[in-house]
Amino acid sequence: MVYQPAAGARDLLPLDVAQKRWIEDRLQQVFHRWGYHRIITSTLERMDTLMAGEAIQRHKVIQLQNGQDEELGLRPELTASIARTVVTRMAEDTYPQRLYYNANVFRRNWEKRHNRQQEYYQAGVELIGSGGLLANAEVLMLVANCLEALDLGSWHLILGEAGITKSLLDAFPIKIRSRVRNAIANLDRVTLDTLPLAEELHQRAKIMLDLRGNSADVLQKVSSLALDADQQEAVNNLKSLVELLESEGKFSLILDLSLIQTIDYYTGIVFEVVSDINGQAQVLGSGGRYDQLLGLYHPQGQNIPGIGFELSIDDLYQVLTSSQQLPQSIPASHWLVVPNSENVDAAFAYAQKLRDSTHLVRVEMDLGGRDAEAIRQYARDRSIAQIAWINSDGTPTIEAVR
Amino acid sequence: MVYQPAAGARDLLPLDVAQKRWIEDRLQQVFHRWGYHRIITSTLERMDTLMAGEAIQRHKVIQLQNGQDEELGLRPELTASIARTVVTRMAEDTYPQRLYYNANVFRRNWEKRHNRQQEYYQAGVELIGSGGLLANAEVLMLVANCLEALDLGSWHLILGEAGITKSLLDAFPIKIRSRVRNAIANLDRVTLDTLPLAEELHQRAKIMLDLRGNSADVLQKVSSLALDADQQEAVNNLKSLVELLESEGKFSLILDLSLIQTIDYYTGIVFEVVSDINGQAQVLGSGGRYDQLLGLYHPQGQNIPGIGFELSIDDLYQVLTSSQQLPQSIPASHWLVVPNSENVDAAFAYAQKLRDSTHLVRVEMDLGGRDAEAIRQYARDRSIAQIAWINSDGTPTIEAVR
Repeated sequence: MVYQPAAGARDLLPLDVAQKRWIEDRLQQVFHRWGYHRIITSTLERMDTLMAGEAIQRHKVIQLQNGQDEELGLRPELTASIARTVVTRMAEDTYPQRLYYNANVFRRNWEKRHNRQQEYYQAGVELIGSGGLLANAEVLMLVANCLEALDLGSWHLILGEAGITKSLLDAFPIKIRSRVRNAIANLDRVTLDTLPLAEELHQRAKIMLDLRGNSADVLQKVSSLALDADQQEAVNNLKSLVELLESEGKFSLILDLSLIQTIDYYTGIVFEVVSDINGQAQVLGSGGRYDQLLGLYHPQGQNIPGIGFELSIDDLYQVLTSSQQLPQSIPASHWLVVPNSENVDAAFAYAQKLRDSTHLVRVEMDLGGRDAEAIRQYARDRSIAQIAWINSDGTPTIEAVR
Repeated sequence: MVYQPAAGARDLLPLDVAQKRWIEDRLQQVFHRWGYHRIITSTLERMDTLMAGEAIQRHKVIQLQNGQDEELGLRPELTASIARTVVTRMAEDTYPQRLYYNANVFRRNWEKRHNRQQEYYQAGVELIGSGGLLANAEVLMLVANCLEALDLGSWHLILGEAGITKSLLDAFPIKIRSRVRNAIANLDRVTLDTLPLAEELHQRAKIMLDLRGNSADVLQKVSSLALDADQQEAVNNLKSLVELLESEGKFSLILDLSLIQTIDYYTGIVFEVVSDINGQAQVLGSGGRYDQLLGLYHPQGQNIPGIGFELSIDDLYQVLTSSQQLPQSIPASHWLVVPNSENVDAAFAYAQKLRDSTHLVRVEMDLGGRDAEAIRQYARDRSIAQIAWINSDGTPTIEAVR
């Protein structure tokens, strides 16, 4: 079994790598153009760091055997690690901090235990130190610019507001609130009907389940819920954001005030990016505002606002692979240099001269053990354009491969 | 403790990342010019895959908690994973395969348990499917080209031949051979003197310890050991390689036929790259030929020759950081765009127009909450060249920052 990969593990062969890089390079270009800088955090984290934001369940984290007193796990996402790093090691820097990552994450997948994927690739950003409309708009427009850079034709954004949704849940008795929250998170009407609630609260729960659709309708519906001053302000802020996004005309937007996780660290807008390609809805990434998270990691508990998103490279790959945009072959070598046994160093010197060009010239050396016809066949098979046969006097004879 | 990284873990802040990328980009350029393609293998591997080549000890592997029947660990090096992948998933491809990696590896460091580093970065190549002089020469010249691309001034190569060294050990009684091997691997003259060996074998062991120095001397010394035909051929091959390398004039070479590990998978040449900068010898990487390794991973046990090396990005970073070649700051944004609250969408549109340039233009948005003077101070602090103040009519007023 020594030749078997770990269950669910994947290896990326050169063409897979080229396709992954195609996606990552485009995303990185966009991040750079928006003033973001890359950060790389440790793959291993203390379990208490990973769990602090309560966005991940312990049984989904791949844990290490550890004789020491610290419990360690492989990061299942990047936001916790970046929050920890920013508040401890970048505390002297001015805000805002614009950071991006392009990294692997690890999760146990218990549902499909016989074919579970454990390692995933993500790219994303964290915009730290700014609350408010402009920061929210920046992150959402940045998402849109990423998808544009990938020529991803058909997608929409599902936009919620966890602060509003959580606050609307405050009307429910505390004993039953988490069940209402779970039912709404899972769009579970059946459970909602069986919950012991007064008629008025039943109505409220049902309206909350229905706060999904085009922005004007949803904003009107939520206003029917007799909002307090804070809630009204939050709704007004959301309205400003929606107007700004829709004025740009780049957004197919579904407003969804039932969008909430059963547990998470989001405090403001939350969103999912959904591809509509081939008539199939596929979530490509998600994000949101987390204004209470950094305080959990700050040595003195100081809160710093933040917002971010992640895009799944694996899911982007899956969507893009059908569209033939990704590279369909690895780059061929430009030259095959064939040494003469009497003058091997001339071959290496000639190859190096070709490589030392200002633009990228890919040069392979023939390593012996085959005749001229086999060498030509190899060059054809690998789409190598030219062969340089090195003569015994060190001069090359150039042959175009056809 | 939620804000503490795992013991020994490091986070790379944007400047660290820029410096790491500087090194990696140069290495990658060289790999591409030599016709190598990147491969990415799973971070997690079965323990039997990692241990098959016997080059790593179990207690140095970071193992996972796993309820399943497979024992998993974090890869401590890449060669085992690439060997596994090549023989199983690339079996239909033609040889040679030229593959490179740029990856993180994980090791337990028991010696310094209070400040152990667990995650390291490596770049390296594997040249699969070719034995012989040309493949050996290619890999060593590729190493030299890598160091040249990094402008690493002062380094030397320690070159051994595990096949010759192992074969010379065959003269020792089998019961005592591994102790002789350990003593030679550790240059341990004291232990060697205490081993119960006939005088002639004592002499032989001492000569083997001394097979280190300039190539002509060592090749002459080894010939004094009464070689059999196979050994003589291996020495002749080594001589051809040394002549080829020294004719290139790029190599400061120490030939060392005592260079052997206590356990490893190398069967032919082995080498270490050593920096001499600041008068301090520091190993930057190592490699060698492994012609029996792929057979361990092949489902039918078929052997395929291979040779490779790894360079430690961490050690390269340490050596280069003193030489001021690495970038000393992160790239500054070219523009800071300041929205007018009456016309926020004009600001986003203007910023996007700046970003949509064919060359890379980095544009930050001011996210509000500070006055004009604070904005100017921020731009100065971050070395941003220009501010675009967006007016209420949507037009920009450009200000050069000084």
